[in-house]
Amino acid sequence: MSFNLSEKNLERIQEHVLHKREEALLNEVNEMHPADIADLLDRLDLDEARYLHSLLDGEVAAEVINELPEDRREDLLEDFSAKEIAEEVIEQLDSDDAADVIAELPEDVQQEVLANIDDSELKSEITELLSYDENTAGGLMAKELVKVNVGASMLDCVRELREHADDIEHVYVINVVDDHGKLVGTIPLKKLITTSLRTPVKDVYDPDAITVKADMDKEEVSRIMAKYDLPVVPVVDDRGRLVGRITIDDVVDVMREEETEDVQKMGGMEALEYSYSNSSLWEMVKKRAGWLVILLIGEGFTATAMSYFEDEIAKAVVLALFVPMIISSGGNTGSQASSLICRALAVGDVTTKEWWRIVKRETSVGLTLGIVLGVVGFLRVAIYAQFTSLYGPHWVPIGLAIGFSLLGVVLWGNLIGSSFPLLLKRVGMDPAVSSAPFVATVVDITGLVIYFTIASLFLAGILL
Amino acid sequence: MSFNLSEKNLERIQEHVLHKREEALLNEVNEMHPADIADLLDRLDLDEARYLHSLLDGEVAAEVINELPEDRREDLLEDFSAKEIAEEVIEQLDSDDAADVIAELPEDVQQEVLANIDDSELKSEITELLSYDENTAGGLMAKELVKVNVGASMLDCVRELREHADDIEHVYVINVVDDHGKLVGTIPLKKLITTSLRTPVKDVYDPDAITVKADMDKEEVSRIMAKYDLPVVPVVDDRGRLVGRITIDDVVDVMREEETEDVQKMGGMEALEYSYSNSSLWEMVKKRAGWLVILLIGEGFTATAMSYFEDEIAKAVVLALFVPMIISSGGNTGSQASSLICRALAVGDVTTKEWWRIVKRETSVGLTLGIVLGVVGFLRVAIYAQFTSLYGPHWVPIGLAIGFSLLGVVLWGNLIGSSFPLLLKRVGMDPAVSSAPFVATVVDITGLVIYFTIASLFLAGILL
Repeated sequence: MSFNLSEKNLERIQEHVLHKREEALLNEVNEMHPADIADLLDRLDLDEARYLHSLLDGEVAAEVINELPEDRREDLLEDFSAKEIAEEVIEQLDSDDAADVIAELPEDVQQEVLANIDDSELKSEITELLSYDENTAGGLMAKELVKVNVGASMLDCVRELREHADDIEHVYVINVVDDHGKLVGTIPLKKLITTSLRTPVKDVYDPDAITVKADMDKEEVSRIMAKYDLPVVPVVDDRGRLVGRITIDDVVDVMREEETEDVQKMGGMEALEYSYSNSSLWEMVKKRAGWLVILLIGEGFTATAMSYFEDEIAKAVVLALFVPMIISSGGNTGSQASSLICRALAVGDVTTKEWWRIVKRETSVGLTLGIVLGVVGFLRVAIYAQFTSLYGPHWVPIGLAIGFSLLGVVLWGNLIGSSFPLLLKRVGMDPAVSSAPFVATVVDITGLVIYFTIASLFLAGILL
Repeated sequence: MSFNLSEKNLERIQEHVLHKREEALLNEVNEMHPADIADLLDRLDLDEARYLHSLLDGEVAAEVINELPEDRREDLLEDFSAKEIAEEVIEQLDSDDAADVIAELPEDVQQEVLANIDDSELKSEITELLSYDENTAGGLMAKELVKVNVGASMLDCVRELREHADDIEHVYVINVVDDHGKLVGTIPLKKLITTSLRTPVKDVYDPDAITVKADMDKEEVSRIMAKYDLPVVPVVDDRGRLVGRITIDDVVDVMREEETEDVQKMGGMEALEYSYSNSSLWEMVKKRAGWLVILLIGEGFTATAMSYFEDEIAKAVVLALFVPMIISSGGNTGSQASSLICRALAVGDVTTKEWWRIVKRETSVGLTLGIVLGVVGFLRVAIYAQFTSLYGPHWVPIGLAIGFSLLGVVLWGNLIGSSFPLLLKRVGMDPAVSSAPFVATVVDITGLVIYFTIASLFLAGILL
């Protein structure tokens, strides 16, 4: 089984589509996983994709729709009536996927589709799922699960499982509830095979199963499932009643999305809605231009800051030459620090409560780094001074000015870079917004002031 | 059950440890998951941790060791003889965890420990696992799995499962092999309950189960398991023989680690070995100083580049004022592009084969962004010119110089930022190394040349 759609296959299939070779196409797709067929449809032209999708049969056709990137899915579903979406897609999917597909439909269509769902149980399940915030456990969970009363026997478990086996893809555990629907524990599936069917459930179930609340943030859910190696976790409401279950494969997708968004934000842009290759040129510009303009206007203040030192620059042009080197060193240190802290916050390695510990620590780190860079900076001037007349007779004070400015700017950049993510998180914003470029800009402006102030100290009466 | 160790609990437990209150401590830890006990031991002083760990009983004690961060684990195991490590830790763990723990021991200890493993099967399993590259499926897989011959019946599956139930934590599927040990398919566990035990395996198993090769890169494995929503995937050797299995929880850990390393590299530093909070100040400086010095030396060339335009700056100091604004805009655009492409490569959204498509696209994006920023840049000068005498009568040509420089620098920065990751990947390096700071530095140097060249064009005969 090949995992990634090769160019060669793509061309062959496009050939088939072009000549409407139904049989050949069915042979191709019958070999393929829905996720791969979705990839294929995503790479074809819209009308090609529509034709190929129309050949797929019920179950698979629905799965493929579910696997498609949002934008391509919208395009394909435009051809569908609300009734068709309800019957041919929604009713074929698990409640969680069904809810996600509906949630991504245009407002007006959503109600129509819901109204067209015949299966009243599925309808109410989806309506419930849609009522949760998509960023919470409730928004992530599925309603399909196997549950038995704590008074039941293992045999009842088997009966229950037989009943639901078809509509639940992966069964990992059987949930045990009391008469009020409160979750009291779980039974790993293998226990069904390894214990006698006469055994009462209460003798077998594990009472301290880890659960998550329906309103828990989905990132927290993924942290918990990752930490405790849970293939599945039961979701309970405020009263501890079992309302659904989240499987690890859903969490893996969440993790990938969250991390992609973080990386993009840290890169100094808005997170893309779709994948890179599915984002239009216009979408790309929209998401990037905003921050770039903000940063440009921010950087504009460096010109203002420098203009205060215009006379110094006029007197000692050599000072201007080092501006990019000095401020970028502050920026680089800042980006290191912000990436470190953002990630540590994201994986729950540090919390904002520890801010003081972190700031103290980053002060020592920044100081050490500053000394290292300061020395290197001084040496650079010293060495160049031997080979060029650029710095004239006064290379020592110039070198000292550069060295100490680097020390100051690096220490400062490290503090800004490490405290910004903590500050943002503290006020409830996404720390990833304190991107490298953002931190760099702030550090650039302040760095200039540090540089020229220190420079004037060392060069007063010599060059200035 | 509380997930994160609260300060309050920590203090209470430390109290108990201080006064060696064994019973109280056992009550505390008996309520806790090994992963939480590991967190606890990680937060205590070493001798406190040693004492508390000595109270834990076999199974749990080993699990906790397995869950501990590498550095803290090393400290704790220093007290153990090779024999104790073998018996009290390794033999209590699954083959994959056991192999990981051994792999992280000092070279000399490793052999000793292996020699002390009594269970010869486990010993050979671990030795095999250690023979795989840790970055491949082989390095990730466990040997514990349930397999039956394709000639067997469902009843045999149940027998086989009963036999292994204890030493396999999560059983998801039963692997079906032929007489040569070649994997022919899998049976989902629930099938055991939903089909009659008399049914022959060959009528039940799913022949096109997705598998991975033992030498497949672990990131590729995680991509595949995520894409196809696999809770477990069988690992086969070159001849298709079943050699192990990888469960999704292991992959989740891999994903977290990989992402963290990428974020740190993109932040312009070496990836940390341990988590942020477990890295010593010295370790931190080591991982960060290297790149900072390289970048500083790189940025040094901006001074060299600018020195070629010393006369222009002397004549028109105003040019110097805009240097930070111009070059940082190029850098910011570059970091956006490199983060975008790095991530797209990491999740397999784009491949280096598509480089030409990407470069063409980023050229249009860069051009559009460049025009936007160019206009904003010109407007900034125009507006300031109305309120300050900074730019004198020649603010129009100055504004044009700034505007067109921004256009050029942004376009250029976007090209560098998007092609570097592709280039690095192409030559087999980690694209994440083309970090924002790295790209920014390259763009800064070249950006200066672009800026001053364009400026001389517009200002020749006016200011220059």
